[in-house]
Amino acid sequence: MDDKEFREFGKAAIDYIADYKENLRDRDVLPSIKPGYLCELLPKEAPEKPETWREVLDDVEKHIMPGITHWHSPHFHAYYPTANSYPAIVGEIISAGIGCVGFSWIASPACTELEMITMDWLGKLLGLPEEFLNSSPGPGGGVLQGSASEATLVGLLAARETTVNRFKKEHPDWDEAIIRSKLIAYTSDQSNSSVEKSGRLGAMTMKLLPTDEKCSLRGATLLETIKKDIEDGFIPCYVVATLGTTPTCAFDNLNELGPICNKYNIWLHIDAAYAGAAFVCPEYRYLMSGVQYADSFNFNPHKWLLVNFDCSALWVKDSRFFTESFNVERIYLANNKDGPTHDYRHWQIPLGRRFRALKVWFVLRLYGVEGLQKHIRHTIELAQRFEKLVNDDNRFEIPIERQMGLICFRLKGEDKLTMQLLDRLMSRRKIYVIPGAYREKLVIRFAVCSRFSMHEDMVFAWNEIAEQASEILQAKLKPAAINESTLLTRPAKKSIEMVSRIKDLEMENKQLNTAFMVK
Amino acid sequence: MDDKEFREFGKAAIDYIADYKENLRDRDVLPSIKPGYLCELLPKEAPEKPETWREVLDDVEKHIMPGITHWHSPHFHAYYPTANSYPAIVGEIISAGIGCVGFSWIASPACTELEMITMDWLGKLLGLPEEFLNSSPGPGGGVLQGSASEATLVGLLAARETTVNRFKKEHPDWDEAIIRSKLIAYTSDQSNSSVEKSGRLGAMTMKLLPTDEKCSLRGATLLETIKKDIEDGFIPCYVVATLGTTPTCAFDNLNELGPICNKYNIWLHIDAAYAGAAFVCPEYRYLMSGVQYADSFNFNPHKWLLVNFDCSALWVKDSRFFTESFNVERIYLANNKDGPTHDYRHWQIPLGRRFRALKVWFVLRLYGVEGLQKHIRHTIELAQRFEKLVNDDNRFEIPIERQMGLICFRLKGEDKLTMQLLDRLMSRRKIYVIPGAYREKLVIRFAVCSRFSMHEDMVFAWNEIAEQASEILQAKLKPAAINESTLLTRPAKKSIEMVSRIKDLEMENKQLNTAFMVK
Repeated sequence: MDDKEFREFGKAAIDYIADYKENLRDRDVLPSIKPGYLCELLPKEAPEKPETWREVLDDVEKHIMPGITHWHSPHFHAYYPTANSYPAIVGEIISAGIGCVGFSWIASPACTELEMITMDWLGKLLGLPEEFLNSSPGPGGGVLQGSASEATLVGLLAARETTVNRFKKEHPDWDEAIIRSKLIAYTSDQSNSSVEKSGRLGAMTMKLLPTDEKCSLRGATLLETIKKDIEDGFIPCYVVATLGTTPTCAFDNLNELGPICNKYNIWLHIDAAYAGAAFVCPEYRYLMSGVQYADSFNFNPHKWLLVNFDCSALWVKDSRFFTESFNVERIYLANNKDGPTHDYRHWQIPLGRRFRALKVWFVLRLYGVEGLQKHIRHTIELAQRFEKLVNDDNRFEIPIERQMGLICFRLKGEDKLTMQLLDRLMSRRKIYVIPGAYREKLVIRFAVCSRFSMHEDMVFAWNEIAEQASEILQAKLKPAAINESTLLTRPAKKSIEMVSRIKDLEMENKQLNTAFMVK
Repeated sequence: MDDKEFREFGKAAIDYIADYKENLRDRDVLPSIKPGYLCELLPKEAPEKPETWREVLDDVEKHIMPGITHWHSPHFHAYYPTANSYPAIVGEIISAGIGCVGFSWIASPACTELEMITMDWLGKLLGLPEEFLNSSPGPGGGVLQGSASEATLVGLLAARETTVNRFKKEHPDWDEAIIRSKLIAYTSDQSNSSVEKSGRLGAMTMKLLPTDEKCSLRGATLLETIKKDIEDGFIPCYVVATLGTTPTCAFDNLNELGPICNKYNIWLHIDAAYAGAAFVCPEYRYLMSGVQYADSFNFNPHKWLLVNFDCSALWVKDSRFFTESFNVERIYLANNKDGPTHDYRHWQIPLGRRFRALKVWFVLRLYGVEGLQKHIRHTIELAQRFEKLVNDDNRFEIPIERQMGLICFRLKGEDKLTMQLLDRLMSRRKIYVIPGAYREKLVIRFAVCSRFSMHEDMVFAWNEIAEQASEILQAKLKPAAINESTLLTRPAKKSIEMVSRIKDLEMENKQLNTAFMVK
C-alpha cells in the first residue's frame, strides 16, 4: 500500500467511524450471532495475494460489525463506561503513525517527557497530593499503565519485594522462602476480580474482607484481621482500597484504613479505576479524603475521562520501590529519581511501551478542564434522572444508594423476578444491563456509559425495563401465560434457534456476573 | 468536538502521517534536545478552556517531533525493528473507533473470534505444529499479548502454578512455601532482559546459562545444570529458549533442549520475538526445528511483521494451564477448551483487552502471504548487502556470523576504537546504531529496521561509518590531532553545549547497552 492509497484508506476509515458514531442508535446494542459465527464466514488461511482495502473495509461492516457489542451506544449500560472520544482517536492515530517504542528516554524523549507532563496535569486536575507528582522534589511520580489490573499487580509486586527486603535486613537469619510465604494482602469482598487475580499472579494470599451495609471496607475490620494475622505469624504487606467498586460503586473508608496501613508499614494502593475521574470536579473530592495515606493511586482515564482504552494512570509516592524491584540492571540509585527524566520501563511489567501520552494530551487540550467537568456532571445528572424514574415506580426498589453514574435496582420480592427481567432484557437486545449483587440480593446494574447519552436515552431504557417488568408481573398473576412453549409460539420469537440463542446469552450473562462480581 | 470537526481533524492527521513517512529521510534519525526540553515548552497545567485541533496538531510538529527518535527512518539501525505499516495504522483507527473491550465473548464476539481466526492464520503461516492452533481438536490455542515480556511472564506464572500443584499432589506433606522457593527457571545469558525480569516478577530464580561460540544455548549445559540442581533439592520448572537473541540474533538449540525439558517435565517457552517473523518464509523454518517440544511459542508481529506495536503472538499447547492458573472464578473446566470460543481474559495478565486482531487481519489481507515474504526477504537482502560492505573493508571484522537482518561488527583491535566510533556516530545523529557485546568484545549492532530501507540506505550508513572510522584511525596515527579541544574548535561543533550534549548521549547510550545486552 503506497502513500496515496493510505491517504484514501485512512480518510475512508475516518468517515466510517464518524458515520458509525452518528448512527449508533440505529444498531442493536447487542449482537445477534452465535458463538463461532465468524469462523463460518472467514477463510481458514491468510490470502496468498494482497486484497484491496475496499474489500477489507467492506468486510468490517459485513462480518465484524454484526459481532460487535456497541460499548458507545447510548443503550449500553453494562459494566462501566469505556472511554472514547474524537480527540483520543486522533491521538491514537498520530501515535500509531510515529510508532516509537518508549522504553527509555533516548528511544523517543518526547514519549517519556510528555507522559511526565500529562501525568502531572492529570494529578493536579484530580487534586492529588503533591508528593505524587513527577515535578515534586521527592521520589514520587506518575506513569501510564495499560490497565488497572497491571497497576494493582505492579503495586503488589513492589510491596512484596520491598517487604521481603525489609524483613531480610531486620532478620538476617530468616529464610527468604518463609518470609515470602507469610506475606498477606487485603482487599474488600467488593473489589474487582483483577485484585484477587493480582494476588494469584504475585503468589500472595489476598484476603477478601467483609464490608459494611454501604459495601465499604472499614478500619475496624482491617485492623482486627491484621492483628490476628500478625499473632498467627503472618506479615501484612499490601492493602487495595477501592474508590468506586465494580458491583455497587462503593467507597472504602480511606480515613480509617490509611492510618492503619501507615502504622503497620503496609503498602496502601487505591484502585479508583472508575470513580477517580469524578475528582476532576471539586465537589466530589471529599470521596477521596484520606488519599494522603496511600502509597499508590490508580484511576482509568480510559473509563470515564474520555481517553480511549488503554490508558490507566498510576501514581506512586516513592518510585524507587518500582525501580529497585523491577530494574534488572541493579544500578545503584544515587538520585531521588532515576535521572532528570524517568526510565519508565522500570515502572511497569513489559519492556516496550506505546506513546499513550499523546491521546491524554489531545483530550486534555481539546476538552479543557471545563469540558471534562461538564462530561462528568452530565453523566451524573443522567443517572439522577434514571434514579428518579426507578423511584417513581413502586414495583421497584433501589437497595443501595446511587453513586456517580451507577444505579443498582431490582423488582421488589424474590430474586427470580429480577432474573426474569434481566433475561428478557438480554434477549431483546434493546439495552444492555448486567446483573449484580447487593447483600445476597440480585440487582440490575445500570450504568450511564456513552458520551452520546441524553435524557431521552434514560427514558428509552426505563420504558424498556418497565414494559418488560409489566409483562413479567402480569404473567405472575396468570402463571400459565409464560413458559417455554408460549415463547415458542409468539410470532417474534417462534424459532427453536431463538430459544437456543436466549439460553446461550443467559449462560454468557451468568459468566459475566461471576467475572465481574466478586462473590 | 463534533462529527464534522472530527472528519477534518482525522483526515488532517492522516495527511500528517503520510507526509511524515514520505519525508522521513529529511529528519535526523536522532533528536537534538536535552533531557527536560519539553517541560520548558509546555504549560504546567491543563488548559481551562478547550483549544482548537489546529493548535494541537501544530504543536505536534513544533514540540513533539523535535523530541522523537524516528524508528521508521531508513537510518534507524538500533535494537530491532518495530513494525509499522499503513494497513496496521488503519486497523488501529478502526479499533479505536469501535472502542470495545474484549474481556469475554459477549463483550464483543467479533473481538474474540477474529483473534482466534487470525492467530490460526499466523500459526499456519509460520508452520507451527497443529497442536498450537485454536482450530485444533485439543486444548491448544493462540492469543495476542501486548509484548514478549508479558508472554514470557504468563508462561512462567502458568509453569509455576502448574508445577506447584503437581508437587502438592505428589507430596501432600510438603510445605507449599518450600516448593515455591525451590522452583528454578533457566535461560541463556544472551536472552532478553525481560526474561530475567520475568523471574524477578514471578519470584522465581532465573539462571542465566552460558552459551557456545555461536551464542547458542546447548543441551549439555542445560542438562548438567538441571541434574546438579535436582541433586541439590531444587525443582526445575521453566526454560526460556530464544530464537534470535537481542545481542546477536543467536538461536538456541531446540532439538537438544526440547527432549530434556520434556523428560524432566519442565515448561519450555520459546521466545522468537524478532526472528519468528522469518518463518513465514519456508527457507528459514529449519531454524525452529525442535519447536514441537515447546509448551508455548511467542513472536512479535510488532517487530518484523508489519503489525504496529503492540502485538505479540503467543501460542500454547494446553491452554488449561492458563485458565486454571489465572481464572479467579475457579470454574471447573469440563471441556478441552473454555467453551466454543475462548474467554481470553484468563490467558493474560490484565482483564481488559483492545481489539488488536483487526490490525493483524488488515496486514495479512492487504499484504497477503506473498507480500509478507517479500518484506522478510528484502530485509535480509539489505543486510547481506551491508555485510558485504563491511567485509570489503579490511579495517573491520564481523566476529559472529550475520543472522537475519542483524550484523554485529567492530573495528579490528582494541574495544576503545569501536567505542570511539560509536560515540562519533551517536553525536552526529546521521544513523542510529547501538553497542553490543560478543564474547567480551564490543561490537556495533547494525539492524535493518525500516520498511522504507533501500540499498542506497545501506550505502549511506556504510559511508558514514567508514568515514568516521577513517577519522578515528587517522587520529590514532597522529595522537595530537583529535582531542576535546580540537572538537571544540572545529566549526560545526564549537560550542560547549555540543560537547555536553555528546556526553549526555554517551551516557544514554551506555544505559541502553546495559538494558539491552544481558551481561
